[in-house]
Amino acid sequence: MASVRPVFYVSDGTGITAETIGHSLLTQFTETRFVTERIPFVDNVERAREVVERIRLAAEQHGVRPVVVNSCVDSDVSSALAESGALMLDVFAPFIEPLERELGEVRQRRMGQAHGMVDFETYHRRINAMNYALTHDDGQSIDYGEADVILVAVSRAGKTPTCVYLALHYGVRAANYPLTDEDLDHDRLPPRLRPWRSKLFGLTIDPARLHQIRQERRPNSRYAQLETCRREVAAAEAMFRAERIPTLSTTHTSIEEIASKVLTTLGIRREMF
Amino acid sequence: MASVRPVFYVSDGTGITAETIGHSLLTQFTETRFVTERIPFVDNVERAREVVERIRLAAEQHGVRPVVVNSCVDSDVSSALAESGALMLDVFAPFIEPLERELGEVRQRRMGQAHGMVDFETYHRRINAMNYALTHDDGQSIDYGEADVILVAVSRAGKTPTCVYLALHYGVRAANYPLTDEDLDHDRLPPRLRPWRSKLFGLTIDPARLHQIRQERRPNSRYAQLETCRREVAAAEAMFRAERIPTLSTTHTSIEEIASKVLTTLGIRREMF
Repeated sequence: MASVRPVFYVSDGTGITAETIGHSLLTQFTETRFVTERIPFVDNVERAREVVERIRLAAEQHGVRPVVVNSCVDSDVSSALAESGALMLDVFAPFIEPLERELGEVRQRRMGQAHGMVDFETYHRRINAMNYALTHDDGQSIDYGEADVILVAVSRAGKTPTCVYLALHYGVRAANYPLTDEDLDHDRLPPRLRPWRSKLFGLTIDPARLHQIRQERRPNSRYAQLETCRREVAAAEAMFRAERIPTLSTTHTSIEEIASKVLTTLGIRREMF
Repeated sequence: MASVRPVFYVSDGTGITAETIGHSLLTQFTETRFVTERIPFVDNVERAREVVERIRLAAEQHGVRPVVVNSCVDSDVSSALAESGALMLDVFAPFIEPLERELGEVRQRRMGQAHGMVDFETYHRRINAMNYALTHDDGQSIDYGEADVILVAVSRAGKTPTCVYLALHYGVRAANYPLTDEDLDHDRLPPRLRPWRSKLFGLTIDPARLHQIRQERRPNSRYAQLETCRREVAAAEAMFRAERIPTLSTTHTSIEEIASKVLTTLGIRREMF
């Protein structure tokens, strides 16, 4: 009997921490189907009581005990939530005591800190990195000297989302260089990229997938033909090999994984936002 | 004595889950200074032993016991990491047993699942939302009918990063409408927005901050003048009030918080990626 299990990510802030750990936990249980809901900004007991009503309603509707992944730091709020009768998984509780003992310090119960506003300078770095990614998208303007990373690939192989992710989450300035037909006629790096060899990272992709993606964008164009995709990908891969550019296939790789691999490979260390 | 405590986020996948929960925990300890490092893709015992060396080196350098926030699901890998002598915080361990009991199912120990590639359809929705955000940025082209959300604000108030974040993390199609001088001469919604009232969300910002941001972009322009910023922000806020558009100030709000508030306010429910 495949019942559906309701899961609530409840937080006094954005709910990102609760949802991230909760999602990671749920992916380890493959036989249960889950319906999930994130309830952010639960920062007082009154809000918590409203949430309890929603949880009870879900319990009735689905005829099964809900799961609450809770990242609220206020213990009154957590106690109020526990009244729902759901299985309570408190994201922080198991780690606080060992940390307090190790650090010799009592934790501060400030709400919604983790994904809140940091200092203006850090915020600025992130926004500037984002603007950089957007203005250096698809070789529109060239200022590779300022880039931390230059992603090199044929059109539609995953450069833009990766650049934006790198900017948003790591404040990394990621430019991108789309390989043109002219570039692909040669086995060597395009001249404009040669001064920046240590910043280059190549993305590749399965030609059939590339065909599918381009087909959605420009149906039945020469650009989208499987034959064109095969030729371009083969030429790009040959160039990456000849020039020893680190390369990753995006076909079965998430944006998060690509970003993480790029930073690790190029030895760029940044904290996540 | 303010010692510096080394913290390692170790994972068999991207390390995003470990870093997210770890970062949330550390923000609750305000007297200790931390240096953090994310070590992704630790998916076998050999890699784990290399990591142990790095942890031991950090212990020596800083003269203090490091903390490891570990999200590896393989128990051999975790045991190998524990040899480092660091304080081990296992991100999943405390929650697995209660979940297994509640769900009547044994968890699957598959590595790097949480932020890995999901199905092609979900991936596509995310990339399409991203492309939508980029092509509907700053009113470049108009297809508001397809938007889930339309952010309305004066130039540089935070529309673009929020749109991109909504696309990347929630697969939400977010368009954005920059209020022009002409729009601001009236107290009413610009005609192009009127059919889409239920999708509108207004962003506002402290004029002094806006001045600072615009000043970086176009120094000493009329556009950047404090007086211009004051006038534009006042006119935009008056319009939002008159038209009862939900509004949020971005001045002390992170991109994550803005995105979360927009979805909650407009009643859009989406799982995070």
